[in-house]
Amino acid sequence: MDYRRFFEDAIDQLHAEKRYRVFANLERIVGRFPRALWRANGTAREITVWCSNDYLGMGQHPDVIAALCDAAGRLGSGAGGTRNISGNNHPLVELEAELADLHGKEAGLVFTSGFVSNEAAISTIGKLLPDCLILSDELNHASMIEGVRRSGAEKKIFRHNDVEHLESLLKAAGRSRAKIIVFESVYSMDGDIAPIEKIADLADEYNAMTYIDEVHAVGMYGERGGGITDRDGLAHRIDIIEGTLAKAFGALGGYITGSRSVIDAVRSYAPGFIFTTALPPAIAAAATTSIRHLKTSQEERRLQQRQAQMAKDVLTAAGLPIMPSQTHIVPILVGNPELCKMASDRLLDVHGIYIQPINYPTVPRGTERLRITPTPFHDDALVLELRDALLEVWNALGIPLSETSAPALAQSDRVVPLVVSKAGG
Amino acid sequence: MDYRRFFEDAIDQLHAEKRYRVFANLERIVGRFPRALWRANGTAREITVWCSNDYLGMGQHPDVIAALCDAAGRLGSGAGGTRNISGNNHPLVELEAELADLHGKEAGLVFTSGFVSNEAAISTIGKLLPDCLILSDELNHASMIEGVRRSGAEKKIFRHNDVEHLESLLKAAGRSRAKIIVFESVYSMDGDIAPIEKIADLADEYNAMTYIDEVHAVGMYGERGGGITDRDGLAHRIDIIEGTLAKAFGALGGYITGSRSVIDAVRSYAPGFIFTTALPPAIAAAATTSIRHLKTSQEERRLQQRQAQMAKDVLTAAGLPIMPSQTHIVPILVGNPELCKMASDRLLDVHGIYIQPINYPTVPRGTERLRITPTPFHDDALVLELRDALLEVWNALGIPLSETSAPALAQSDRVVPLVVSKAGG
Repeated sequence: MDYRRFFEDAIDQLHAEKRYRVFANLERIVGRFPRALWRANGTAREITVWCSNDYLGMGQHPDVIAALCDAAGRLGSGAGGTRNISGNNHPLVELEAELADLHGKEAGLVFTSGFVSNEAAISTIGKLLPDCLILSDELNHASMIEGVRRSGAEKKIFRHNDVEHLESLLKAAGRSRAKIIVFESVYSMDGDIAPIEKIADLADEYNAMTYIDEVHAVGMYGERGGGITDRDGLAHRIDIIEGTLAKAFGALGGYITGSRSVIDAVRSYAPGFIFTTALPPAIAAAATTSIRHLKTSQEERRLQQRQAQMAKDVLTAAGLPIMPSQTHIVPILVGNPELCKMASDRLLDVHGIYIQPINYPTVPRGTERLRITPTPFHDDALVLELRDALLEVWNALGIPLSETSAPALAQSDRVVPLVVSKAGG
Repeated sequence: MDYRRFFEDAIDQLHAEKRYRVFANLERIVGRFPRALWRANGTAREITVWCSNDYLGMGQHPDVIAALCDAAGRLGSGAGGTRNISGNNHPLVELEAELADLHGKEAGLVFTSGFVSNEAAISTIGKLLPDCLILSDELNHASMIEGVRRSGAEKKIFRHNDVEHLESLLKAAGRSRAKIIVFESVYSMDGDIAPIEKIADLADEYNAMTYIDEVHAVGMYGERGGGITDRDGLAHRIDIIEGTLAKAFGALGGYITGSRSVIDAVRSYAPGFIFTTALPPAIAAAATTSIRHLKTSQEERRLQQRQAQMAKDVLTAAGLPIMPSQTHIVPILVGNPELCKMASDRLLDVHGIYIQPINYPTVPRGTERLRITPTPFHDDALVLELRDALLEVWNALGIPLSETSAPALAQSDRVVPLVVSKAGG
């Protein structure tokens, strides 16, 4: 076994499949979001980021940064230990109380990432419950799939957002067997929303637990930013609401909220929680400040929705293949990994616009896309600039609409033909 | 299935087994490390932390905190995305270069925690290599065990630090089969050190890869703080060196370093890396500053060793059952989970000294202990205060040396009888 050669070949294979990922080296500029310095080939250049998951720009909010620095100055840069061994810092305890309140739950538990929160919570609950059946939406995030896998529990995949399919699986399992339905509120790559109320009805009828991932919704939906379950008044009908501190709240980490006993069980039994250093007090303080701000301020949510709708309207009117989305997420179908990468590269090189190509395995092959996330700070002028740049790239690379025969696009009734003459408009 | 009842019972069971963990609510005080505010029952009280993994107190270093706040002020509080999708920030790129340099490797890769770094790296490498055999030390950390498990590869456990046992397993597997030897440099609960050179010799002889966890050594050993492999000039003989930013470096996150190709393979293939938000630039900048400081400054390492040795000497002389340790880790055997918890509680209540009880599953049953980690800031007066407090607690709870018949203690030749008259000394 020639190890070096083996790993070099593994990398070469990714290059050959055009799946090799290059991470753009970015330096975001506080006060000028969504602008950032992009470093490549020894030079730095200012660009506009159009694919940030700092969905509301809270990562540059002065109160959030001030809270971070204040906590670091008083408590230090790290937590200094696991939660159990000297790392349980006061700002983290406050953050968990804030999160429980946000979702109207008895308790909250913070992890160092959303990935770990899903993986640890789902695997632990699925392992604890005897003979548990996990019912999982087919488009669930990788972290949820890992959690389901690692629980060792039996799993059944239901077709995406298909409540009839889900019901047939619940019926087959029967009322007495332990069951968890695991799903997302907003699916991040298509921007569609789960039928939460119907799923909760089914859970009641068949006595199943419900676990919802709200990472692409918290902060952005609901009167207090509690996500789609907040907006639709459904939080009390879901057993466990999972979310992130690393997207709309602009910090780092993930969390779950729920009843005191279920949260305490995960806290006590999950190895991925027990044996890991606690989140630094500075990050916890930043997250708490952001959550509190978004509990009362509607401005960020209103502007985000406005700019997302404007982007959808303007890009659709220009003939770009915008995929249907019920949320702030605006995907543009390319349908080919090489073209997707080329489009992304050209946007950056020629137009100073950064939108990462989304290729397999993040999305199914044939549905490769550019995924745009307008924030409150992507103003009207930036939207128009984006439209012009996209049209130039589509034209230059000869990405014809006729090629876009992928399934996701076929479902769309919004796609209109590319009219290049609108490019200058 | 009554879910609420089920989870309540799961918690009750932990109480019944005396394994229920209560996290102390702490607020560390910058500039006065190891002092912290401890909140309980509505009051806050100042205490001394004796079990921090901020081993060198770097979490309160003015340069580290300044770097954190400077980066937050310029780049914001969060990374805003995964490494692939807009989250790859410049301070993180610099940190990875710094880590590669620290260990003399071609490349480094940062994760949001040490747990994730072990789990993701070991599972990915073990999965990629065809028909891989993983040889794992029996006392490896939970995160390494998870990585081995999730690789799906065949594993063989070798007896702790037993190179003869390891050799017999390597010999049985043969030279041509892909093999990784997975072990730690410093085992954190006993403070003993692996026979690294012998393991590297065996790896050469039988053509195996080597993966070492240096989380309890980086920053603290070696002329540049590269860990035991730095101290002993062995870094070049190990394929992958894993470490943490959350202990001696005082920040958050974990990492691996190694050849460009193996690091690139983990970067490209590990789901726990790909689908998670990048470390915030502020945390990366804090870690880089800390690493750079410890690459040149010997003072922290010298003082830590001095105070750890003093603690061992003073506590041993006082008749306390100090377990043998080759490092800065000073474990005191209690050998019973209830007594261990009671000793910890009394130290905190009566003496304002915080040392978390270490019970099963972190250590084997019967070897429950108090694990003390003297830092450069635990001065002579604090060590003497600790001795007196421990003697009072041992006496008050009637923890006799004759009861301490656990295996780990039996190996110790350092235990001398308890002499209570020395308590006031």
